[in-house]
Amino acid sequence: MILSGEEIRARLGKEICISPFCEDSLNPNSYNLTLHNELLVYEEVVLDVKEPNRFRRLQIPEEGLILSPGQLYLARTVEYTETRGLVPMIQGRSSLARLGLFVHCDSGFGDVGFCGHWTMELSAVQPIRIYGGIRICQIAYHEVVGVVREYRNGKYQHNCDIQPSLMYKELGYTRQYEQLQLDFDSLASSCQEQADYSYSTAGNSVGRGRPTQTV
Amino acid sequence: MILSGEEIRARLGKEICISPFCEDSLNPNSYNLTLHNELLVYEEVVLDVKEPNRFRRLQIPEEGLILSPGQLYLARTVEYTETRGLVPMIQGRSSLARLGLFVHCDSGFGDVGFCGHWTMELSAVQPIRIYGGIRICQIAYHEVVGVVREYRNGKYQHNCDIQPSLMYKELGYTRQYEQLQLDFDSLASSCQEQADYSYSTAGNSVGRGRPTQTV
Amino acid sequence: MILSGEEIRARLGKEICISPFCEDSLNPNSYNLTLHNELLVYEEVVLDVKEPNRFRRLQIPEEGLILSPGQLYLARTVEYTETRGLVPMIQGRSSLARLGLFVHCDSGFGDVGFCGHWTMELSAVQPIRIYGGIRICQIAYHEVVGVVREYRNGKYQHNCDIQPSLMYKELGYTRQYEQLQLDFDSLASSCQEQADYSYSTAGNSVGRGRPTQTV
Repeated sequence: MILSGEEIRARLGKEICISPFCEDSLNPNSYNLTLHNELLVYEEVVLDVKEPNRFRRLQIPEEGLILSPGQLYLARTVEYTETRGLVPMIQGRSSLARLGLFVHCDSGFGDVGFCGHWTMELSAVQPIRIYGGIRICQIAYHEVVGVVREYRNGKYQHNCDIQPSLMYKELGYTRQYEQLQLDFDSLASSCQEQADYSYSTAGNSVGRGRPTQTV
Repeated sequence: MILSGEEIRARLGKEICISPFCEDSLNPNSYNLTLHNELLVYEEVVLDVKEPNRFRRLQIPEEGLILSPGQLYLARTVEYTETRGLVPMIQGRSSLARLGLFVHCDSGFGDVGFCGHWTMELSAVQPIRIYGGIRICQIAYHEVVGVVREYRNGKYQHNCDIQPSLMYKELGYTRQYEQLQLDFDSLASSCQEQADYSYSTAGNSVGRGRPTQTV
Repeated sequence: MILSGEEIRARLGKEICISPFCEDSLNPNSYNLTLHNELLVYEEVVLDVKEPNRFRRLQIPEEGLILSPGQLYLARTVEYTETRGLVPMIQGRSSLARLGLFVHCDSGFGDVGFCGHWTMELSAVQPIRIYGGIRICQIAYHEVVGVVREYRNGKYQHNCDIQPSLMYKELGYTRQYEQLQLDFDSLASSCQEQADYSYSTAGNSVGRGRPTQTV
């Protein structure tokens, strides 16, 4: 049993929270979610399921960003959602599918009780220019049978940022995660600001490309 | 709640229309749909979500057509379907998935009330030869909860042809859509018919590669 | 209606069989399945929907195996499952999707009544190292409406091995399937064992790369 659009609206503030909510985005049996203008790409030549994999951030500029085939772009929804007593499901929109854009690599079914922004896995069959703020995917809701033990303390609960894979955590990766995170953009801009820039300070200025979230 | 094959048959002529319908194509909980022998490929080097993107048509010949990785092929079902009061869902067939053929880029869930032929987005992991008329995908039906406002005037309602993305319409593209559509095939055949072919007439003979549907 | 994790547990031994079953793998509305360490890749330059396509086996070694983009890897679950009166569905795990790993090319919905190991179609957006025994995908269960005629004698029923596509069977392929299957690994090891190895015996030593399953 999938909830109709009217039923999604009727359950807002109860089992369903979508924030912000916009009436125009309601479909016959789903709700459109929008693309945040920040993306994340891995920096490893070969990704490893057992290791934390380095990544860096990209901004989608006003004039759009061209996605290249063979490259994975992690993205997130602008909307924060909470779902209780229902199975939430993220699915691509037909309008973007018709341009060869995958928005996720799995079936898109989430866990009952998931709260957070949705991380999407964008990959393109052919090169395609996308823009921040477009309606990128849809959320739909399936009813659930039986006693529910909600997703509470999972690896991805309460994500408010794009969240890369944490698979390595369940595979016993225990080393301190001390990867060197180079931030060439801020290095470059620092170079321009400071003529006497010294590389010895580079170690302190690295981050994830977003100053508010240093590691 | 997904409809069983028997239940799909029981609802034919009521909530469900599949035309033509063939008893052999009924599965335990879905119905097989067949591939029309016409495909559509985009002609842009970079697709753009905000623009109408040029395309051309391909026929799948009798001996089959090899799909190349990194290329998107829009296709359609031979069957016309109507679905009322249920959520229709298109999914690939396991036999084609096992050959690395994707038939769509999203989860395949449609809207309650959708009437038309289904546009599919074929993409191949490895080169693969396909044929017109093969059973390419399946349609399944989910029950819906709550008051239903059907998909009526949507962008893709009543599609009887392969329908490329109309995403640009919701992104405020207002210019007259006057792209130059080159039709090299009919140019070539005209050349053969007319020895005194003059390039000055090329502007009038362009089309979508199908004479019955000029723009 | 999707079964909750508790409901999946409650139906074990009735409609649902998952063997082996491990309590830790139960999620709020699905169950995690694990990857067998054997893979299968096709050996054809161009796959053909109408033909049996040659393949060979790969073992995932202890140190993992790097999956290359543009290559399809058929895999299977360690677990054997049986599902009666419910629609089973295989879906990727978010942790692997976030690394750009597709585990199937279709929506993952199976047939009511399917018994066997699940064949998966692994494909990677970027190169990725995977390992045998990881929790690779999830099985979820949808309730079904109407009289059920179960999947009994289907092409893929009772699969206990990785099963390549049998699409050619429904497309009228009738020739005896006598492809030459070269087994370079055992050829090479034979060479090392026997200094007087003669190429004239090669014709007798071919197989599918697994000695216990000669053709």
